[in-house]
Amino acid sequence: MGVRLVDTADDDSLDIAGVMAPLGADARAAARVLATASTDDKNAALQAMADAIRNASAMLVEANRDDLDAAHERGLSPALIDRLTLTPDRVEAMARGIEEIAALPDPVGRTLAEWTRPNGLDIARVATPLGVIGVIYESRPNVTADAGALCLKAGNAVILRGGSDSWHSSRAIHACLVTGLKAAGLPEAAIQVVPTTDRAAVGYMLAEMADTIDVIVPRGGKSLVARVQAEARVPVFAHLEGICHVYVDGDADLDMARQIVLNAKMRRTGICGAAETLLIDKACARTHLGPIVEDLLEAGCEVRGDAAVQTADPRVVPASEEDWSTEYLDKIISAKIVDGVEGAIAHIETYGSHHTEAIVTNDPQTAEAFLNEIDSAILLWNASTQFADGGEFGMGAEIGIATGKLHARGPVGVEQLTSFKYVVRGTGQTRP
Amino acid sequence: MGVRLVDTADDDSLDIAGVMAPLGADARAAARVLATASTDDKNAALQAMADAIRNASAMLVEANRDDLDAAHERGLSPALIDRLTLTPDRVEAMARGIEEIAALPDPVGRTLAEWTRPNGLDIARVATPLGVIGVIYESRPNVTADAGALCLKAGNAVILRGGSDSWHSSRAIHACLVTGLKAAGLPEAAIQVVPTTDRAAVGYMLAEMADTIDVIVPRGGKSLVARVQAEARVPVFAHLEGICHVYVDGDADLDMARQIVLNAKMRRTGICGAAETLLIDKACARTHLGPIVEDLLEAGCEVRGDAAVQTADPRVVPASEEDWSTEYLDKIISAKIVDGVEGAIAHIETYGSHHTEAIVTNDPQTAEAFLNEIDSAILLWNASTQFADGGEFGMGAEIGIATGKLHARGPVGVEQLTSFKYVVRGTGQTRP
Repeated sequence: MGVRLVDTADDDSLDIAGVMAPLGADARAAARVLATASTDDKNAALQAMADAIRNASAMLVEANRDDLDAAHERGLSPALIDRLTLTPDRVEAMARGIEEIAALPDPVGRTLAEWTRPNGLDIARVATPLGVIGVIYESRPNVTADAGALCLKAGNAVILRGGSDSWHSSRAIHACLVTGLKAAGLPEAAIQVVPTTDRAAVGYMLAEMADTIDVIVPRGGKSLVARVQAEARVPVFAHLEGICHVYVDGDADLDMARQIVLNAKMRRTGICGAAETLLIDKACARTHLGPIVEDLLEAGCEVRGDAAVQTADPRVVPASEEDWSTEYLDKIISAKIVDGVEGAIAHIETYGSHHTEAIVTNDPQTAEAFLNEIDSAILLWNASTQFADGGEFGMGAEIGIATGKLHARGPVGVEQLTSFKYVVRGTGQTRP
Repeated sequence: MGVRLVDTADDDSLDIAGVMAPLGADARAAARVLATASTDDKNAALQAMADAIRNASAMLVEANRDDLDAAHERGLSPALIDRLTLTPDRVEAMARGIEEIAALPDPVGRTLAEWTRPNGLDIARVATPLGVIGVIYESRPNVTADAGALCLKAGNAVILRGGSDSWHSSRAIHACLVTGLKAAGLPEAAIQVVPTTDRAAVGYMLAEMADTIDVIVPRGGKSLVARVQAEARVPVFAHLEGICHVYVDGDADLDMARQIVLNAKMRRTGICGAAETLLIDKACARTHLGPIVEDLLEAGCEVRGDAAVQTADPRVVPASEEDWSTEYLDKIISAKIVDGVEGAIAHIETYGSHHTEAIVTNDPQTAEAFLNEIDSAILLWNASTQFADGGEFGMGAEIGIATGKLHARGPVGVEQLTSFKYVVRGTGQTRP
């Protein structure tokens, strides 16, 4: 594209508008074509993308090595390096993920509702693409493939802005996606990658592209979320942290509570649906607290407790006020004794992030209070918070978990990447 | 509330944050109560509001006189003064409007979708209130009643910011709404009016209240829309102008076309669904142009045409480039000859505002191209654009017509004023 690629720090001499504005215009033009693209054409492109990724497996692992070398040089943590790493198995999983998206029903053109008015007008609400989606993400290279494929399936053009850590991997994956688009005769600009890692590009997307980007999906940590909140002029699918809670009620079955708490915290600690705070009803603290804390400690989890929880085991360390609003994404959990379900609800309302909360109880009335009164995207009764996932919900792949209340909330899959319009069919009606 | 009321121009000494921040906090607290308020309580409040408005009819007309006096003094146009005027009949209509909202089904708690996963998890998407809604509007006093009632029905707290023209009327109506809230034991802060007409309050709502307002609904003209686009940090239901088109296709029935064009333009010229531009297929210009233009001229409509349209009648005046993107809201229409449905689509894509467009044709294939390819909130086939209205759609009252593509599009009624959450019921499931 003739654009100078800037791979490291910010560079005052870079003409960000000159780089970004054409991406936006090209995306808008591509979106017009995609809006009426057939299901077959979109699926053909997706299959060709999966094929191209499989064929390029060795090349992708090679490109990824450049990212890994740089990551080691910069001293990235083992967890981050693991997220960044591509192996032949992970490349195959990426290709399969695209095929699964191809197999989903086309979300565009669905009739969401239809009714006839007394005057004979037939009114249908019909799903349409959103238009152009901007995705701002961090180190996982597979997001390039997932987000590109999901947006295409929903008839949207997408502008992907990945992190600098995965620069070489993302570019190589993007090349495979473009191969697929070309094979199906769809516009190459349907999936574009921002050709610079300069952070000013993020600011430009957030603030200056309201005419060419319909919605931005931010996927990242605290600093990205803060930046989005401060700078966004383009609509955003809010994605806050996942400070997820498990509340063990006085009427909880102890075995079930032990299994759910352990799974919610420890199955995978790095996902946004992992539990970060354990709340235990004082009514069952005597019987339930000890075994649950013991399970966590035995599994290698640090437990930070209030005074009452500290009495359960000498290995429990004191929790500070900050712990109640911390997303650890690690083998750490904060734990507190609360006064029944209303105590749990009050704690979650104060410290939660409106993501995912679970209650363990055998009392349906207590469960309904928890499910009704808490204003979070996902509320579970007698199930692990780790189910907060588009795949687990049966939506196919997802582009993230939205914690905002507008348009999309919870897992953002292909259906959430659509809008709608009203189509009204008449026989000459005029309004009296 | 002890707040100084500023009734005229902007005032640098006014502590806007001191006025607005408490409104926000009170609204958030009220929203928590409303989120679990029963349908009966909400409807009891609505009925008590309608009663209070009826009982206060003479007082409301009296308060309105103060606004009308000021309006005459400021030399407002007759059209604006008409919008502003309250009569006993209009007060009665306002009360009936609230009763109609009470009669609508409760949109909160609806199960929008429900399914069971292979692992036995039962997943339901359940409608919830949005939270706190900000409504920024201009001179019509009835918006105070409509917006307050709609937001309450959907379980939301609302902060109303009316224009200075309707200051006294809106305050008096608001007092009736508060009477209704009190009668039903609901928090008074469920419906608040910004107690100043200082324009800085609008800026504060748009930019500083992201923590306490979940979405802003702007209802107003160009200057408000421009301000919202420039300043909004709070999510907004975009409401652009209604530059609505009627396209008369070569296969249109002449009589139907004449009736639809005349109705779309002239039934009421001041509403956002009124047609502003007429597009006529060159294939039927010879037969259809003359009678349609004649109808409009005879009805007292000014016709601004391109060169071809000007040949139809000497009374047609030349259209300038600006006319194609002008919302007249008056007895004026721009008119142009286009090359078939694709010409119409291209014109609408260039100059339209994504609001409402109609096609008149007997050819279903041509109609489907128009309905599918144009990205507007409402598309009509053989019906007048004046049907772009929540009541006409059967949604009950509406708070406006959204032209954005996120969350709400088209008429914004009680259902569009809700969000949702996922409620997942299990029997001890953990994620493998």
